[in-house]
Amino acid sequence: MKVELISIGDELLIGQTVNTNASWLGETLSKSGAEIIKTVAISDKKKEIIASLNAIYDDTDCIIITGGLGPTKDDITKYTLAEYFGSKLKQDKHTLDKIESFFSQRNRPMLDSNYKQAELPVDCTILENDYGTAAGMWFEKNNKIFISLPGVPYEMRGIMTEQAIPKLKKRFKLKSMYYKTALTQGIGESFLAEKIQEWEDQIYKNGLSLAYLPSSGIVKLRISSAKGSDDAAMIDTLFAELENLIPNHFFGYDRDTLPQIIGQQLIDKKLTIGTVESCTAGMLASQISSIPGASAYYEGALLTYSYKIKTSLANVPADLIQKEGAVSEPVAIQMAENGRNILGADICISTTGIAGPGGGTETKPVGMVWIAIATKDGTTTKKMQFSKHRERNIRMTVLSALNLLRLELRK
Amino acid sequence: MKVELISIGDELLIGQTVNTNASWLGETLSKSGAEIIKTVAISDKKKEIIASLNAIYDDTDCIIITGGLGPTKDDITKYTLAEYFGSKLKQDKHTLDKIESFFSQRNRPMLDSNYKQAELPVDCTILENDYGTAAGMWFEKNNKIFISLPGVPYEMRGIMTEQAIPKLKKRFKLKSMYYKTALTQGIGESFLAEKIQEWEDQIYKNGLSLAYLPSSGIVKLRISSAKGSDDAAMIDTLFAELENLIPNHFFGYDRDTLPQIIGQQLIDKKLTIGTVESCTAGMLASQISSIPGASAYYEGALLTYSYKIKTSLANVPADLIQKEGAVSEPVAIQMAENGRNILGADICISTTGIAGPGGGTETKPVGMVWIAIATKDGTTTKKMQFSKHRERNIRMTVLSALNLLRLELRK
Repeated sequence: MKVELISIGDELLIGQTVNTNASWLGETLSKSGAEIIKTVAISDKKKEIIASLNAIYDDTDCIIITGGLGPTKDDITKYTLAEYFGSKLKQDKHTLDKIESFFSQRNRPMLDSNYKQAELPVDCTILENDYGTAAGMWFEKNNKIFISLPGVPYEMRGIMTEQAIPKLKKRFKLKSMYYKTALTQGIGESFLAEKIQEWEDQIYKNGLSLAYLPSSGIVKLRISSAKGSDDAAMIDTLFAELENLIPNHFFGYDRDTLPQIIGQQLIDKKLTIGTVESCTAGMLASQISSIPGASAYYEGALLTYSYKIKTSLANVPADLIQKEGAVSEPVAIQMAENGRNILGADICISTTGIAGPGGGTETKPVGMVWIAIATKDGTTTKKMQFSKHRERNIRMTVLSALNLLRLELRK
Repeated sequence: MKVELISIGDELLIGQTVNTNASWLGETLSKSGAEIIKTVAISDKKKEIIASLNAIYDDTDCIIITGGLGPTKDDITKYTLAEYFGSKLKQDKHTLDKIESFFSQRNRPMLDSNYKQAELPVDCTILENDYGTAAGMWFEKNNKIFISLPGVPYEMRGIMTEQAIPKLKKRFKLKSMYYKTALTQGIGESFLAEKIQEWEDQIYKNGLSLAYLPSSGIVKLRISSAKGSDDAAMIDTLFAELENLIPNHFFGYDRDTLPQIIGQQLIDKKLTIGTVESCTAGMLASQISSIPGASAYYEGALLTYSYKIKTSLANVPADLIQKEGAVSEPVAIQMAENGRNILGADICISTTGIAGPGGGTETKPVGMVWIAIATKDGTTTKKMQFSKHRERNIRMTVLSALNLLRLELRK
C-alpha cells in the first residue's frame, strides 16, 4: 500500500506549528506495513487543496488528508472534498447526536457552526470521532482511498488507530516494514562509513537497506527490510557484528539513551556517581539525573564555574590553575579526584573546557575540552577538540563524557 | 517571492525525524516576507527527487531543498541535481581547503568520501558551509532559484541565515509581514486571556491580529500586522500597556530569554550568583550559564541531589531534613542561605522538589517544589505545585526560578 499524506494549514507553512501529525502518521503507517511516498503541507486554500489532489501519483493507493475540518471559517477541507468528489452535503443524524452529546457532557451550548459539522458528504463513509466534533471521512475514487481527518493531533490519532487503520488492513494485505536502529556516539558520519564499509556491503547483499542519521554527537544507523520481521534475526546478527566492530561508539538501539544505559550500569554494579563540572555547568548532571530513579546512584555535583570556586570547593590548588590553566589535564584530574572524595561517590567525572565564543587562545582554542573520570582504580582522561559554537560544544562535551563513562563502567 | 520547500530523507517519511527544518525555514522565510506555498518531504531516491522538481508550480520563485548532501552512499541529492541541471561535477579548490581545515582543526584525517564533498556542480554558486563539510548550492533555471542545503539543522540554519537569505533579499523586493512577540512566564493561556481581555479587544480594533503561542511554562503573545513595519509604533504602545498589566509575568520580546535578561540585570547591578539545586539537578545552572560571558556573574553551584550531600556540602542540618523533609521551606532556605556563603556569591537560589514519577506522598505530592532566593537583604521563598510529569516539572521549576530571580533583581 503506497500512501501520500497531505497536511492542510497555514500554521504549518509559516512554521508556527511543527508537523508532528506527518511524523506520527509516517511512523504508524510504516509500522503497519504501508510505504509513505510523499508528505505535503499546503495552505487552507481551495486552489491548493485541489492542486495537491491532482498531483497525486498514479500508483498511490491511499491519500491521508489532515486539517481544515474545524467549525471556523478558515476550515474548508470538507467543502472542497465534497466538490472534488461531486458529492452533496447532508446532515448525518448519528454524527449530530454525537456532537450534541459532546456539548451537553461539557455543559456548553452548541453553536450554529457546530450543527454544520454534522453535515457530511453523502458519498463518503463516516469515520466517527470520539474525541471531538469533526468526523473523519473515507472516500473512494479511481481505485484510490482518500481519508480526511481533523488536524488536532489526538483526534486524528484516535480516528486513525481505532477506525482507519483497521479498515485499511481489511482492504490491503500489509506486510510491515521492519526496521531497527543502532546508536553511535563520538564518531563522524564519514569515519563511521569507512570503518564499517565491509559490514555495510553485507547489508545490501542481504537485500536490506541502511541509512545514516547524523545529529550533533550522535549518528544513528538504521537497517530496514521490506520483507518485514522475517528479516529480524538477520538484522540482529548484523548488528551484533557492528557492536564488535565499533565497541567504543555503539551504545544502544532505537529509543535507548546514554543516561539510561549508564543508570542501568550503575545500578547493576551498585555504584554511585557525582560530577564536577566547569564548561558543561550542570548539563551533564541534569542529563544523568533525568532518568526516573536516578537518586539511587546520583549523589550530586560541584559546578566550579569560577576559578575561585574551583579552589575553594574542589580544592584545586590555585597555583596549579595559575601554572597549567583551568583547561588542562592536571586540573581536570584534580577536579575528578577531589570531587570523588568531597561528594563521597564511587565515581566522579569532571569537565573543563572553553565553550566559547570568547576565551580561546592560540594554544587553547575555543572548543578545547578535558574530561577526567576518577574511580577507586585510578583516573582516566581525554582531550577533545570541538567547534566554535558554544551550545554545540557544551552538548558535545556532555555526550562525550557520557560515552566515556559508559566505557569506563563496562571495564 | 513564492517559495516551495523540498525535504529529502526517508527518516522524515517514516516519522523517525520530525521535520523541524521545514518549520524553521517556514518561520524564517515568512518573517523575511516570503510566502511559503508548499512543503514536501520525499525519500532519498533519484526518481522521487526528479518528480518533485518536475511538480514545482509555474509561479514559484524559489525552491529550497534540504538533505542528502552528506558523504555517505545514501546521500544522492548533489548527483541528482547535477544531472537535473545538466551540470558536471568538478573539484572546488576553496571548498576543498575549507574541508581540509575542518578536519585538521579537529586533528582528524580526511577520507575519500570527504574529498568527494569538494566536488560540486560547475553551474552552481557555492554557498559556503562554516559548520560542516557539505557545501550549499544555488542554481538558477527558468527564472527560478534552487537552493540545496544539508539536512543537519545547525548547518542548514547557518548557511541559510548567513548566505542564502542575504542573497535572496538582494534579488527580491520583500515586504515583510511585521510581527512582534511578547513573552510571559508563570500564567496559563486561559487565565492570561481573561486578564487581558480588554487589551486584546484594542488589538482587533486597530486592525491587527493576535496569536497565543503556549508551551510549557511560557505563553507567547504575537501581534502581527499585514501592513508591515508601518504599524510598529502602534504595536509598541500596545505592548507597553501589556507590560503594566502583567508585570510579574511579562519578561521580554521575541528572542529574549530569561537567562539573558537575568545576566544583563546581574551585570548592571554588578552582582554575582550561585545555585544550590536538588530537583533541577543542574538544569538551572546550565540555563544561567548558557549565555556567552556568564563567567562575569556566575560563580558555580552545589547540586545536592542526595540527603547526604545536602548535609555534607550545603550544611543543611540532618535533623532539619528529618523533621521537615527535604522538600520543605526551611530546607530550601538553608540551601540558599548556606549556599550564598559557601559559593561566595551575592545571590543564591535554591530548588528542592519532587520531580516524580515516584517519591510523592499525600501531603507532598509529585510536582511540589520549594524555591528560595537568598540575598544580603534576606531570603524570599515560593512554593509551586506542578504536574506528574518529571521532565515538565524540572523545566517548570527552572522557568519559575528564573522568573522569580528576575523579579528579585528588579526590586
